[in-house]
Amino acid sequence: MNKSPACFIDHTLLRPDSTHAEIDRLCEEAVEYSFAAICVPPLYVEHCRRRLYGSNVALSTVVGFPCGFEPSRIKALQTAEAIGAGAGEIDMVIPLGAARQDQMEVIADDVRQVVAAADGRPVKAIIECCLFDDAHKRRLVEAVVKGGAAYVKTSTGFSSGGATVADVTLLVEVAAGRIKVKAAGGIRNWPDCAALLEAGAQRIGTSAGVAIMQEWYRQLGPTE
Amino acid sequence: MNKSPACFIDHTLLRPDSTHAEIDRLCEEAVEYSFAAICVPPLYVEHCRRRLYGSNVALSTVVGFPCGFEPSRIKALQTAEAIGAGAGEIDMVIPLGAARQDQMEVIADDVRQVVAAADGRPVKAIIECCLFDDAHKRRLVEAVVKGGAAYVKTSTGFSSGGATVADVTLLVEVAAGRIKVKAAGGIRNWPDCAALLEAGAQRIGTSAGVAIMQEWYRQLGPTE
Repeated sequence: MNKSPACFIDHTLLRPDSTHAEIDRLCEEAVEYSFAAICVPPLYVEHCRRRLYGSNVALSTVVGFPCGFEPSRIKALQTAEAIGAGAGEIDMVIPLGAARQDQMEVIADDVRQVVAAADGRPVKAIIECCLFDDAHKRRLVEAVVKGGAAYVKTSTGFSSGGATVADVTLLVEVAAGRIKVKAAGGIRNWPDCAALLEAGAQRIGTSAGVAIMQEWYRQLGPTE
Repeated sequence: MNKSPACFIDHTLLRPDSTHAEIDRLCEEAVEYSFAAICVPPLYVEHCRRRLYGSNVALSTVVGFPCGFEPSRIKALQTAEAIGAGAGEIDMVIPLGAARQDQMEVIADDVRQVVAAADGRPVKAIIECCLFDDAHKRRLVEAVVKGGAAYVKTSTGFSSGGATVADVTLLVEVAAGRIKVKAAGGIRNWPDCAALLEAGAQRIGTSAGVAIMQEWYRQLGPTE
């Protein structure tokens, strides 16, 4: 792959004890490498809005994260608060108990409430692939499509497994162009990132964006 | 210890994909064993309020959980929503980035906003002990005392470490009777539970409450 992967990367820092200094560095790196977006804790959205002002880097934050077990009304309030503070994209977690119980209408409605509160900004709905079998994942993709999400996202990175090529392939097939696919969780190097892009992911959520870019530059070979 | 530990146990189920059936069983067990409280996802509070109606089991839920990185205003809204749905206790996570940066006023204020929204119900402030050294933990206890929490709680159970006897001993010493101490995270058997109670914990958050009670009954020996 010769096209820079930077435009697919959501440069992510969601460690609960992240500091302002770490978040500032994340913003600087995102601008330097022209990443698609940063993804940061809700508390830091307003700060990041100022840091990214005038750049082309999108600002994303998380809602109902990483458990997804808050009432939809709370997720909608979190979304409105984040949008008000300057977020341009929302990464939300679907209600995973409802997913386990196959209540697909509950999931679609939960996504719908966040999408409404996001007021036109893209919403990425995390279905936590590692918890479900393939048939279940197919139904979850349909539910988040129905809810109006812009992306279905594989993982929070806080559960027992992250993004896999098999999951991205499945999600891309079911999404069938109706929504995009974001791969996230445990993506730490360029070969993994390349394989997920090859499988059809259109965003890569990772905290290793800088290392991935450096590997990508190296594999291009000496360019003078 | 001959006094039943049941009255110290917060019978807990916070797995993100918990189902209604699992939550119902949790409620039944809590009533059967006379646990102090259950601790459940926010989504299930209203359901549990009905299941526990007429019992002496308190109903707790979580706020800003498990990352603590939501704005205080959102944590206050989550608290008000939970109280409205029937929660009688709130387990919240302090802003761990502020903790890392030693912004103790930010932490006290965050706790204060949740305490105000809890409107007299006890608030347990989780300081995620595994992330900090002892001197830092001492300052965090002072901050949550200042914020008006009823308990300082060791851990979310979602980070790199859970409750230890050393941490409970330290927290009890610093709290000095001003607030109580709740131990949580990785407590799976009666000997661990007994050691934490011995160290001065006044609540034990665990998903292994039933197994712990069965071990406790056994160690009493034949009673006939």
